[in-house]
Amino acid sequence: MDPSRDPLLLTPGPLTTSAGVRGAMDRDLGSRDAEFVALNAEVRRRLVAVVAAEPEYTCVPVQGSGTFAVEAALGTLVPRSGKVLACVNGAYGARIRQICQRIGRDVAAVECPEDRPVDPEAVDRALAGDPGITHVALAHCETTTGLLNPVPAVAAVAAARGRRLIVDAMSAFGALPLRAEAVPFEAVVASSNKCLEGVPGVGFVVARARALAAAAGNSPSLALDLHDQWRGFEANGQWRFTPPVQVLAALAEALRRHADEGGVEGRGARYRENLRVLQEGMGALGFVPLLSPSVQAPIIVTWRAPGGPWSFEVFYRALRERGFAIYPGKLTRAPTFRVGCIGQVFPDDLRRFVGAVAEVMEAMGLPSGAPGTGEGEA
Amino acid sequence: MDPSRDPLLLTPGPLTTSAGVRGAMDRDLGSRDAEFVALNAEVRRRLVAVVAAEPEYTCVPVQGSGTFAVEAALGTLVPRSGKVLACVNGAYGARIRQICQRIGRDVAAVECPEDRPVDPEAVDRALAGDPGITHVALAHCETTTGLLNPVPAVAAVAAARGRRLIVDAMSAFGALPLRAEAVPFEAVVASSNKCLEGVPGVGFVVARARALAAAAGNSPSLALDLHDQWRGFEANGQWRFTPPVQVLAALAEALRRHADEGGVEGRGARYRENLRVLQEGMGALGFVPLLSPSVQAPIIVTWRAPGGPWSFEVFYRALRERGFAIYPGKLTRAPTFRVGCIGQVFPDDLRRFVGAVAEVMEAMGLPSGAPGTGEGEA
Repeated sequence: MDPSRDPLLLTPGPLTTSAGVRGAMDRDLGSRDAEFVALNAEVRRRLVAVVAAEPEYTCVPVQGSGTFAVEAALGTLVPRSGKVLACVNGAYGARIRQICQRIGRDVAAVECPEDRPVDPEAVDRALAGDPGITHVALAHCETTTGLLNPVPAVAAVAAARGRRLIVDAMSAFGALPLRAEAVPFEAVVASSNKCLEGVPGVGFVVARARALAAAAGNSPSLALDLHDQWRGFEANGQWRFTPPVQVLAALAEALRRHADEGGVEGRGARYRENLRVLQEGMGALGFVPLLSPSVQAPIIVTWRAPGGPWSFEVFYRALRERGFAIYPGKLTRAPTFRVGCIGQVFPDDLRRFVGAVAEVMEAMGLPSGAPGTGEGEA
Repeated sequence: MDPSRDPLLLTPGPLTTSAGVRGAMDRDLGSRDAEFVALNAEVRRRLVAVVAAEPEYTCVPVQGSGTFAVEAALGTLVPRSGKVLACVNGAYGARIRQICQRIGRDVAAVECPEDRPVDPEAVDRALAGDPGITHVALAHCETTTGLLNPVPAVAAVAAARGRRLIVDAMSAFGALPLRAEAVPFEAVVASSNKCLEGVPGVGFVVARARALAAAAGNSPSLALDLHDQWRGFEANGQWRFTPPVQVLAALAEALRRHADEGGVEGRGARYRENLRVLQEGMGALGFVPLLSPSVQAPIIVTWRAPGGPWSFEVFYRALRERGFAIYPGKLTRAPTFRVGCIGQVFPDDLRRFVGAVAEVMEAMGLPSGAPGTGEGEA
């Protein structure tokens, strides 16, 4: 087990974390012991503080991946008679719709192209036309492409129409600005292993306390019932079901480091510089990003595949041998690959990465400077 | 972060693990990388091998605690038109019933006292009287008390009546014998952080492959759909949603150590010796176990509280200061506490524990040798 042989993860997560965060897992904590109860309270408090103020808002963590937390939020906060408007411009918006269908919540959708932000005017029209819609849900950064959705504008539309907003901020929380004071939301959902730079294993929902209090009996799942879990935390600070104690210890340490880096502002600044270095370097090699700069979030970049006989698998393995793990594209209509700029990754890492890409291009016989045409193999 | 200051966890989990298992978490693994895919395949293969043979059986791990895996198994394997007979002689049998009610599966129950095993004849009568029952579900070791349920006898009854068996083997898997060849089961559910001595964060279901194949569309949850996850594993070895990679790396290492210790036989032998030392020592101090020896599993022991003015919190803190974390009782009708004998815990640890209890009894002014009467504060 030599961590030094692991590649740098330029993915949407799990990410490269710091040795200190991983080191926080080298303990066995009793889940009902006072020390763990205090650690859990610290995590919940710090998570709320990233986007909102107590006591209006509170945090309920939930075991599992981010999708578990999204399903928990929809199942708990949307009443059985409610209806969700899912804003869909990628796989994560589509997943919101899919979850609603599966858990028996009525759902409508506003669909937009994958390379375009959700259109607040289309949301407004949908709300105007369907008074049965109680909640609007969208992804803050649509990780499918790396696109930044206009959450403030959608929040304003939802508020004006008296509907509640649920934000899947999975790949944005902790790096992209979002504050309840300015952007009225019912709940924000995210997970430990993205911009907070913890390890995967726990998601969380920061929600209006009164919304959680009013949600008794909504959830069609016992495991994913945020109301029940919230009541447990309020009563004795304990989890209902065994929490991933090491993952939470890592998250506590990751949150302290997030604060030390300057919180959302400091973390976001580093990621923006990572993005700049990546865009500049890949652009010089002839790679073309999918998105226009105005909607590109500093989280992950989708690049069009080079033209000609190109294979993601070959490209991946060649970069992997040089110490970098990238991510496949997730588009249905164009061959692409993705490169993340989040995690314990710094501008010099991205410079080394661009150098490795140049080497691989040469080794694969792809002339550097050849623009991607999107004609390669997906 | 000094692990040496952490108490030994004499609980039903999370447990004390080995430094080697925790050390396996000191890595960042890409969840779609070939190395992690191979590690995940190893984990699935090793988990099946503990209780059954491939290809008739296969394993689907699921993010979260054991309860998440129990809910996933019931929601996926019991069709919407199915009906579950829950065998209830403690909180975990009751939770099976509660999950069924929550996820919309018809459920009946056979109830037995908390200190008595599930009665196979009562199960047989219930099955004879209700042909609508498709599945029987019970806890192998009822962690509420530490009681060993007669899984083989219940399995025989279910098989004779043509019903399918789902075993919640949470606190038994890896230490108490159970093999599909002898005990026909549809699915066994457990988690990483009990007798396998991994860290918490993932549960798993070992199920008949044909049952999983036939379960498309059953699950009322997207996150907890084992059919979808099984199909993903079969297709490309990958998780649908971000897996807790460090938790799985720890589980892989824990499973290798489990095999090195002699598998179920070796691990069970150590736990039985732990139990013997604990029973002997606590008995000499006058403590009275709740259960008769014939139904006591070598997992966790419920002790009646000493008579007189006794407080669990005071007792807990005094033992905690001496390096041991015990567990509260979970009975509704008698004040008790629980002491586990699983995890990286050895007979000498239990001897030290008994010595600490003797010290604490003296410090609390409780005469050693005074039998518990169950009159203290719960």
